[in-house]
Amino acid sequence: MPDMRSEMVQMGQQAREASTVLARSSTDLKNRALTAMADALVARQDWLIRQNAEDLAAARGQGLSKAMLDRLTLTEAAIGGIARGLREVACLPDPAGKITSMWRRPNGLLVGRMRIPLGVIGIIYESRPNVTADAAALCLKSGNAVILRGGSEAIHSNLAIGGILRGVLKDLSLPEAAIQIVPTTDREAVYEMLQLEEFIDVIIPRGGEELIRAVVRDSRIPVIKHYKGVCHVFVDQSADETMAVRICLNAKVQRPGVCNAMETLLVHEAVAPSFLPKVGGELKKAGVVLRGCERTRAILPEAQRAEEEDWSREYLDLILSVRVVDTMDEAIAHIVKYGSLHTEAIVTESYERAQRFLAEVNSSTVLVNASTRFSDGFELGLGAEIGISTTKLHAFGPMGLEELTTSKFIIYGNGQVRS
Amino acid sequence: MPDMRSEMVQMGQQAREASTVLARSSTDLKNRALTAMADALVARQDWLIRQNAEDLAAARGQGLSKAMLDRLTLTEAAIGGIARGLREVACLPDPAGKITSMWRRPNGLLVGRMRIPLGVIGIIYESRPNVTADAAALCLKSGNAVILRGGSEAIHSNLAIGGILRGVLKDLSLPEAAIQIVPTTDREAVYEMLQLEEFIDVIIPRGGEELIRAVVRDSRIPVIKHYKGVCHVFVDQSADETMAVRICLNAKVQRPGVCNAMETLLVHEAVAPSFLPKVGGELKKAGVVLRGCERTRAILPEAQRAEEEDWSREYLDLILSVRVVDTMDEAIAHIVKYGSLHTEAIVTESYERAQRFLAEVNSSTVLVNASTRFSDGFELGLGAEIGISTTKLHAFGPMGLEELTTSKFIIYGNGQVRS
Repeated sequence: MPDMRSEMVQMGQQAREASTVLARSSTDLKNRALTAMADALVARQDWLIRQNAEDLAAARGQGLSKAMLDRLTLTEAAIGGIARGLREVACLPDPAGKITSMWRRPNGLLVGRMRIPLGVIGIIYESRPNVTADAAALCLKSGNAVILRGGSEAIHSNLAIGGILRGVLKDLSLPEAAIQIVPTTDREAVYEMLQLEEFIDVIIPRGGEELIRAVVRDSRIPVIKHYKGVCHVFVDQSADETMAVRICLNAKVQRPGVCNAMETLLVHEAVAPSFLPKVGGELKKAGVVLRGCERTRAILPEAQRAEEEDWSREYLDLILSVRVVDTMDEAIAHIVKYGSLHTEAIVTESYERAQRFLAEVNSSTVLVNASTRFSDGFELGLGAEIGISTTKLHAFGPMGLEELTTSKFIIYGNGQVRS
Repeated sequence: MPDMRSEMVQMGQQAREASTVLARSSTDLKNRALTAMADALVARQDWLIRQNAEDLAAARGQGLSKAMLDRLTLTEAAIGGIARGLREVACLPDPAGKITSMWRRPNGLLVGRMRIPLGVIGIIYESRPNVTADAAALCLKSGNAVILRGGSEAIHSNLAIGGILRGVLKDLSLPEAAIQIVPTTDREAVYEMLQLEEFIDVIIPRGGEELIRAVVRDSRIPVIKHYKGVCHVFVDQSADETMAVRICLNAKVQRPGVCNAMETLLVHEAVAPSFLPKVGGELKKAGVVLRGCERTRAILPEAQRAEEEDWSREYLDLILSVRVVDTMDEAIAHIVKYGSLHTEAIVTESYERAQRFLAEVNSSTVLVNASTRFSDGFELGLGAEIGISTTKLHAFGPMGLEELTTSKFIIYGNGQVRS
């Protein structure tokens, strides 16, 4: 596909050039662009909704599920939400240019670390047109150019949103190539995009595990991976059982289809006889199906038998694996063996065991006495979330604006040379 | 190569298991191991030197250059230096477990970021047996398991050093698999090592550009890349010319064969007529050959003509590219076009231009009025250097112990659930 290749190379080159301009743009100018983009999206919402209608008509023709159609649909309310999101990003602190530390060397050199944009970000995502504006805003705010490739079902909506955002860039004399939408639904374009290691610094896929594995397989560019969330709650021997029931219920049923919902409950044997019936009753009322180990089923006979593969399953549904463990060490060993390094919580009244769980469990988010559902960029106070990383390099866990930057060393001297 | 593959997979699995033990080991225990390793290397230096002699005999038989033989040789003094290095690593602060920030959320959750080890590090390096001990020490200190693959010329020396270090781990009941040396010189082992994405978290190659490109080509594991150092000094219109001569001389000739030596000198046209003869004379005395643009050659007729490809060349030798520029913007544009994102310095007396250069040049190290030779983990005060990254993801520039860690979120709650 030489034509597709050269088209993508051109997008990459333009993004790289735009990134050097963006890196020097003031926070004030970037914020004005974000606010103007919010205004422009609202001002042109009728046109946006008409463009979106083309996607919706095609999607209905292809028989997409109601859930997918919902995610694809742009209403006045949805566009208002997107615009609010852009205004919120304008209010966040600019991560670029921040000096995170500075120290004096014995020879008088003053050495500091300054955060700078990564450069060019590639985002590959499924059929949610709001991601187009959200991701573009976070990249712009952090001084990065972005190339966006959304799901083919949303192509008209994405191009329409991109056109409006680029119009604002042009009005403010910022480079339009700072925000580029891949203009074709051809899958070959994704492959070619993933070869642009010279022009794109990092790829962030947002979508299911299958999408991410495909991106990792084809990419020559580093990929920030978010595989899955097999999140655990461990109810310790000293847990406040009322609190534990509340946390388990929230972690499982408040929004079961997301990656930070609980998938496996681990219960210390000392509390299993009293706790399991309580939590089991509440979960049953909420419609949750249990898959338990033998000791769980001895206490809750209605639970199904958990198979070996259930322990590593991300149900994203009202199903829960339940295991009784002898010790906290056994709980931690279970998490290491079957977990996905995403989010784990302990419910305990023991100071020592809380501290030990926090220290020893090396998942990206570890909580004491709180629901796993807090593992989220907004809930943790990052102000935004561009994604969640379940691998350790560069970023681990929910990623905010700061994770779209890196650090350079800046050095103030007065003539120093090395001897 | 199914046998080689299964051998490497086994090393990977053992390293992964060892890493979970190391991650929980106390700073005190790790420091005791480092000190004991230093003692053990010195105690067994005669045996080490005999093992090294086997490598040296083979290397002489293969006609290795004197410089390579020097790097390969272990003397009492060299072993003493390695042992001192290990003791210094023991004295550095432990990056693992450090809380870098902590904040309170409106709902009362206390959210913090804690540094944790990356897990398993793979180091691929050329024929310098001291790297075996240095890299193992830095990985151990930061709580990471390491798999080391050194140059085939040093195989006996590396296995001998590894054996001594592992003996100490065993004595202290730490897992021996925390430090593993690939026991074969078969190149297939490197390929198989680079496929172990499940067991190795990051690959750090230490060596020339050719080695690094080969590793990047074959690796399924993220690689921290250090391509090359095409470092620039820009002598501004307001430079103190005496200081500028001193800095240029140091940057070029103090150790020309290293990546942070100056390769290109950019001179503002306003000072070129007075400055170029001064610096040219000093450089000539030091044996440096100049390759200049036309305007340089009009002032220094003895300079050779610089060809287009010279501007992106890493000479690692007493050769220097020299260009006269009209403005600082032209200097920065030259650095962006031909540079390698490594290290750039400005010599200037202008406050405004110093600040602008620091802000606008996004190489990994940017200096004002100091030699490029300070771009080094020890000189910048990191206490150690495991490598230098010229790409932006995870680490950029000289990497110390902290760059061998990542961050997890830790959260102290008292029963919070999401609504």
